[in-house]
Amino acid sequence: MSAFHFQLHASDGAARNGTIHTPRGEIRTPAFMPVGTAATVKAMLPQSVRETGADIVLANTYHLMLRPSAERIARLGGLHRFMGWERPILTDSGGFQVMSLSKLRKITEDGVRFRSHIDGSEHFLSPERAMEIQRLLGSDIQMVLDECPPFSAGESEIESSLELSMRWAKRSKAAFGAQPGHACFGIVQGGTFATLRRRSVDALVEIGFDGYALGGLAVGEAQVVMFDTLDATLPHLPTDRPRYLMGVGKPDDIAGAVLRGIDMFDCVLPTRSGRSAQAFTREGPLNLRNARHAEDPAPLDAACRCPACRDFSRAYLHHVVKADEIIASMLLTWHNLTYYQDLMAGLRAAVAAGEIAAFAAWIQNAYARDEAGET
Amino acid sequence: MSAFHFQLHASDGAARNGTIHTPRGEIRTPAFMPVGTAATVKAMLPQSVRETGADIVLANTYHLMLRPSAERIARLGGLHRFMGWERPILTDSGGFQVMSLSKLRKITEDGVRFRSHIDGSEHFLSPERAMEIQRLLGSDIQMVLDECPPFSAGESEIESSLELSMRWAKRSKAAFGAQPGHACFGIVQGGTFATLRRRSVDALVEIGFDGYALGGLAVGEAQVVMFDTLDATLPHLPTDRPRYLMGVGKPDDIAGAVLRGIDMFDCVLPTRSGRSAQAFTREGPLNLRNARHAEDPAPLDAACRCPACRDFSRAYLHHVVKADEIIASMLLTWHNLTYYQDLMAGLRAAVAAGEIAAFAAWIQNAYARDEAGET
Repeated sequence: MSAFHFQLHASDGAARNGTIHTPRGEIRTPAFMPVGTAATVKAMLPQSVRETGADIVLANTYHLMLRPSAERIARLGGLHRFMGWERPILTDSGGFQVMSLSKLRKITEDGVRFRSHIDGSEHFLSPERAMEIQRLLGSDIQMVLDECPPFSAGESEIESSLELSMRWAKRSKAAFGAQPGHACFGIVQGGTFATLRRRSVDALVEIGFDGYALGGLAVGEAQVVMFDTLDATLPHLPTDRPRYLMGVGKPDDIAGAVLRGIDMFDCVLPTRSGRSAQAFTREGPLNLRNARHAEDPAPLDAACRCPACRDFSRAYLHHVVKADEIIASMLLTWHNLTYYQDLMAGLRAAVAAGEIAAFAAWIQNAYARDEAGET
Repeated sequence: MSAFHFQLHASDGAARNGTIHTPRGEIRTPAFMPVGTAATVKAMLPQSVRETGADIVLANTYHLMLRPSAERIARLGGLHRFMGWERPILTDSGGFQVMSLSKLRKITEDGVRFRSHIDGSEHFLSPERAMEIQRLLGSDIQMVLDECPPFSAGESEIESSLELSMRWAKRSKAAFGAQPGHACFGIVQGGTFATLRRRSVDALVEIGFDGYALGGLAVGEAQVVMFDTLDATLPHLPTDRPRYLMGVGKPDDIAGAVLRGIDMFDCVLPTRSGRSAQAFTREGPLNLRNARHAEDPAPLDAACRCPACRDFSRAYLHHVVKADEIIASMLLTWHNLTYYQDLMAGLRAAVAAGEIAAFAAWIQNAYARDEAGET
């Protein structure tokens, strides 16, 4: 039982409730992974992240390879010890950030050469190097290197990018090799084109992975287009492996994706929003900067168990937001991550109870009415 | 026993160990009060402040009167409930910040008119208003309004300022009135002039206060001058009331002041240093930004009980400092406040054991060698 494997507990339509078993602990699915970009979930201590209910966090290969470097983290005993988080960690391959953050990148069949956004130093990332970095970090779930075409790309550009990504996926899997207890996930690309998504799934399944991620979504397309793409893709994936929708999303995005069969999510939204006065609640988003909270003695969410809701008023949160105090980021991040974990617990329970459609509709109703959030 | 009073447990030379009893809890002395300027000890949750060992925190009248206002905090149930700290709070009178932060201030016999450094709005602070604000906040220990002359002021300027401050002290005490369980402290002024300090003590003792603070020190004078001023002042204060040295200081300042009979301290140093990579340790100050920590697997201080030392390496602290992560401020502030509270516990134990001279010399040795801190 110590090997990496996925256990399905219940289904409700396409929605699934399960457990991913790893030597470092169980991951209850559907799962939300807080983002710990640079070996820290911003404004949180690891123990507090765990208290919100997180079973796993994500860390970014791109950021860590540049600073402090994978080799240094390895010499210090690996990423878990380095960042004080002993439970599972998923690392991305660095591909997405190279495309979005780095400068002067040049993509060839071999890999991608780029300059650091921090100090301009030159770096090279190939499928083999991406997997080597993730192994040095000691990552529990390692992602293949893929190319991430821009949202503006046309079908032929996405198709040739996809072909490159599939060749890289094969090389990534070979480089991953055998790492008992660790997993390697493939990444389905193909934009919003059903035929390309299908081709990508077939290529990855032929290689064979421990789980399958969907990349290239939530990059600007409408929610309905993302959901249509999930509907066209997920039925072709093996049911005995976890499915991970990368970089998603808002509560209603997550609810809709769970409804369609996604098991894992990551997104900077709860943490980033927490640093800009935005709070997620059962009734929808709230902006604590809004003057109407200035003298409100009520908690942010009376039903919430986090310190922001348990120990403080909306008036206090408004005050520390206005005063640019660090505690504002600390409390709102803690609250938002708690909201997200409670959302996932609710989704898991709804799947188990056969009530996922109603639960997803309720979340959709609270969040879809205000895409940009209260201002 | 619910009234505010000071109990002396032990003396060692001029040094004292005691307890200040208040309805909101006991304050073990010598005590260090973390600074919670704007109703938050920066980068800390209140429960974490308590875990460091703090019995009391300080909050700033000046900042709170400007934002969110004393009246609003009163309507929200007082400062303790507002900031989630149910133990004692000391508030300053606002005088020091008006002199150092505000714009266009104009001092008259009545009080001081000034403009907010936040939004330029005009405000007026008199002894009566300063005490009204502190009462609205629900402060446990309230300070009289005093005028704070600049370090550059000559003897005659300090003398006339002192006379004004003593008239304001009398008005402040009258305005404080009767508040069972709450205390009003006078502030001894007089710069570094022994005769003026003595005159100030006599004036304040004649009015009669629950405790006596020393203001106008640690504003630029050499440590030896500050210590000489303490030596010239403290013997004239009543022994049955706590003595508070405002805005002090470095560990060796505190040790030297305890040796001379001070019971209470506040200073932004541990919190502000924590936000700029500076750590206090038993061996002296450390700057975590220094490259020599980059690959050091050792904890900041193996003997320390704080999360920064218990769960992380110096290498990690260096990394999050370099990456400008909020967790760097959180961990180093927690560590520094723990160091300060452990320092105070050590000083209390040393007084009780009759070893204060040796203990103070040890602290002096660790800190006096590097006034500016390791760089």
